[in-house]
Amino acid sequence: MNQNAPNPGAASVPPNRSTSLLTDMYELTMLQAALRDGTAHRQCTFEVFARRLPNERRYGVVAGTARVLRAVRDFVFTEEQLTHLEFLDENSKEYLRNYRFTGQIDGYREGDLYFPYSPLLTVRGTFAECVILETVILSIMNADSAIASAAARMVTAADGRPIIEMGSRRTHEYAAVTASRAAYLAGFTATSNLEASHRYGIPATGTAAHAWTLLHINEDGSPNEEAAFRSQIDSLGVDTTLLVDTYDITQGVKTAVEVAGPELGGVRIDSGDLGAVTRRVRRQLDELGAHNTRIVVSSDLDEFAIAGLRGDPVDVYGVGTSVVTGSGAPTASMVYKLVEVDGHTVAKRSRGKGMTGGTKQAIRTYRSTGVAVEELVFPFDADTPDTGRLSATQLTVPLMRDGLAVDGLPSLEESRAYLAAQLLTLPWEGLALSRDEPSISTRFVGFPE
Amino acid sequence: MNQNAPNPGAASVPPNRSTSLLTDMYELTMLQAALRDGTAHRQCTFEVFARRLPNERRYGVVAGTARVLRAVRDFVFTEEQLTHLEFLDENSKEYLRNYRFTGQIDGYREGDLYFPYSPLLTVRGTFAECVILETVILSIMNADSAIASAAARMVTAADGRPIIEMGSRRTHEYAAVTASRAAYLAGFTATSNLEASHRYGIPATGTAAHAWTLLHINEDGSPNEEAAFRSQIDSLGVDTTLLVDTYDITQGVKTAVEVAGPELGGVRIDSGDLGAVTRRVRRQLDELGAHNTRIVVSSDLDEFAIAGLRGDPVDVYGVGTSVVTGSGAPTASMVYKLVEVDGHTVAKRSRGKGMTGGTKQAIRTYRSTGVAVEELVFPFDADTPDTGRLSATQLTVPLMRDGLAVDGLPSLEESRAYLAAQLLTLPWEGLALSRDEPSISTRFVGFPE
Repeated sequence: MNQNAPNPGAASVPPNRSTSLLTDMYELTMLQAALRDGTAHRQCTFEVFARRLPNERRYGVVAGTARVLRAVRDFVFTEEQLTHLEFLDENSKEYLRNYRFTGQIDGYREGDLYFPYSPLLTVRGTFAECVILETVILSIMNADSAIASAAARMVTAADGRPIIEMGSRRTHEYAAVTASRAAYLAGFTATSNLEASHRYGIPATGTAAHAWTLLHINEDGSPNEEAAFRSQIDSLGVDTTLLVDTYDITQGVKTAVEVAGPELGGVRIDSGDLGAVTRRVRRQLDELGAHNTRIVVSSDLDEFAIAGLRGDPVDVYGVGTSVVTGSGAPTASMVYKLVEVDGHTVAKRSRGKGMTGGTKQAIRTYRSTGVAVEELVFPFDADTPDTGRLSATQLTVPLMRDGLAVDGLPSLEESRAYLAAQLLTLPWEGLALSRDEPSISTRFVGFPE
Repeated sequence: MNQNAPNPGAASVPPNRSTSLLTDMYELTMLQAALRDGTAHRQCTFEVFARRLPNERRYGVVAGTARVLRAVRDFVFTEEQLTHLEFLDENSKEYLRNYRFTGQIDGYREGDLYFPYSPLLTVRGTFAECVILETVILSIMNADSAIASAAARMVTAADGRPIIEMGSRRTHEYAAVTASRAAYLAGFTATSNLEASHRYGIPATGTAAHAWTLLHINEDGSPNEEAAFRSQIDSLGVDTTLLVDTYDITQGVKTAVEVAGPELGGVRIDSGDLGAVTRRVRRQLDELGAHNTRIVVSSDLDEFAIAGLRGDPVDVYGVGTSVVTGSGAPTASMVYKLVEVDGHTVAKRSRGKGMTGGTKQAIRTYRSTGVAVEELVFPFDADTPDTGRLSATQLTVPLMRDGLAVDGLPSLEESRAYLAAQLLTLPWEGLALSRDEPSISTRFVGFPE
């Protein structure tokens, strides 16, 4: 099943797939009050955006969009769930019993770049039907975009070498599955996670754990690394990757090639100064005639460590903790804000949390060389601003119409290719890992001062 | 249903609840190789521990244990899942088709404190049955312990005032549910998350969003904060909490008390310098006769911000992003390591990743004043070390026997009370928020040098 082609027309949602309680209580108490005072049916626009990029990064990556559309489709209340909502009056429960989102969602494509105040999703419908989607939409967008934004920097740092997501053990068991998806979207090559492979079609891969080597002891309890390597090769073939750092790396490499021969697929190193070690291991492998044996490295790699190994003989990176935790930014800090009510622009004026009201769309402009210049954000119903000699891409596209996902939404593979193409449009400094301003700026056009 | 009383004897696991693909591929390829070479049935011990506490914290909080026991119970392979494992041979698939964990798990109680190298879980069984549980056990322990460890510091900082978990929107939609559970375990008072309330019986609570105030406009589009407040009170009663910072806080407070009267339950402030603002708002409320109206604050609070407000008139803290992301430490960095094979101690010798082999248990010693002194870790089958005049608590307790959770495991409420009691045993500096050494040390007794 293509998980990126939501079909909101599906007949019924199994209870275990209902997303309706992945919701903050206040959304339902607001719903109840709005049903009572008659504001529930006001036509509203809610907007998803981020006020800043975390850690002064240069760009963010939009991820989770396809998952949001599925979650909206699956946002239905079962009788068992309604029973739990004893704090609501009967009228509110009846509304929820019949609830299906029937509104419109427009927004940035999954895999697009974003910057502060980019209008990432524009959700239109009645107040009642839109307000209760806040939490689940933000949970997905914040989690997935945080991972994809960190992962894209790692892919850049890897500079074309394969990079494997293997961080499942360092994050919530289901967050691990979607983290794999977001990392793959961002250009990771494969995942260790079987559910992610199963659900999203991501290539799965793996080597062996230290436990595998430690398991192989002689009758007296002494280590027998050779037996571990021989068994792995017997089972998986010489193209497998042997983990060589359980005891002594030099001896491990020697044993590995003795057992597998020079056609050994790879060795993995998971400890030590990876630069120094990989250079030594490369020399050793070459001396043993294992010129094509790949060196796979892991061990708390982040984008900076990956970049630091660019000059070293690393063939494959395995990345765990840092990618599934967003490398210092585990959430994208996106918010879901009411910007329009019955055609009137609204915006809060809280200090430090200001925003521009009104339903919006955006384009990105480019020089003739293909380099991005800026984002222009303008009223949803306005004509596209004149961009002079600059070409422009429409960033806001239809995603859902009358509660149904639009036809022809991209697959995960297509979104992955889309992102790869977008990254090439950033100004040359836009891919730098160092802290700085967003690499392109965002300008609001056609809104009242 | 009590989610803290796993019943591994349950007849069958619905496909949607099977945890078996929440697994790294290499565990299954190791399984296959071990089935081929005859090592699959060696009796092994795997141990969960952390090499360090993140960010130089003084203690960690064990969380997720009850969830682990459920996940182990639900670790079964459906035919549909087996079909996906086309990289395995038939013998391995047949093993998995019949798989149920039938081994023993001992470990620290959920809600206990932990320190570097505390043997948190001891999993015993055949290599085959234990190795494939690695990822799901670590995912749960790492995620839940990271949240609980951060949350406990916030609870200490709140110094007895209620503290509400409201971070669902800033983390993966299902990680949000278990984050609520971990925060509640650590002493949070309530959650905004309805699924967490439904699943774990955690009290749910909420106020209103800025969208609620913004929704209430006059026909000409001008703001009508009064209408928003009046409607909320009509629906939820005067004991509700009104969000007063959408436009101007002073005006918001004035309007709130005009509409609700001096019996208004609370006002929430989500922006600005919370210390200065709460002092001003408290004075204003008192002048208006609303002496019992609570002040609820939110807005990117972490343990340090909470502590910084200790002298200010804050009645309730609402905490979001920082708690669900572990306040700078989104994972607990626990590992799952093979420490014993057929009675022989094993341990890897990788640089910087050393460890002590052998199956272990632990006690914690206390002075007569009840203050904890140290943890003593000793071989699982050894007698408890003599602790002289110090009293001692057994930290390692049976959790699972022959694949079945032991009877009488604590409920979430009991684990919550247990943690609260444990925190009182730390040396006086042990609850400090500043960076330092672990507040009590861990000593290994009875292992070969």
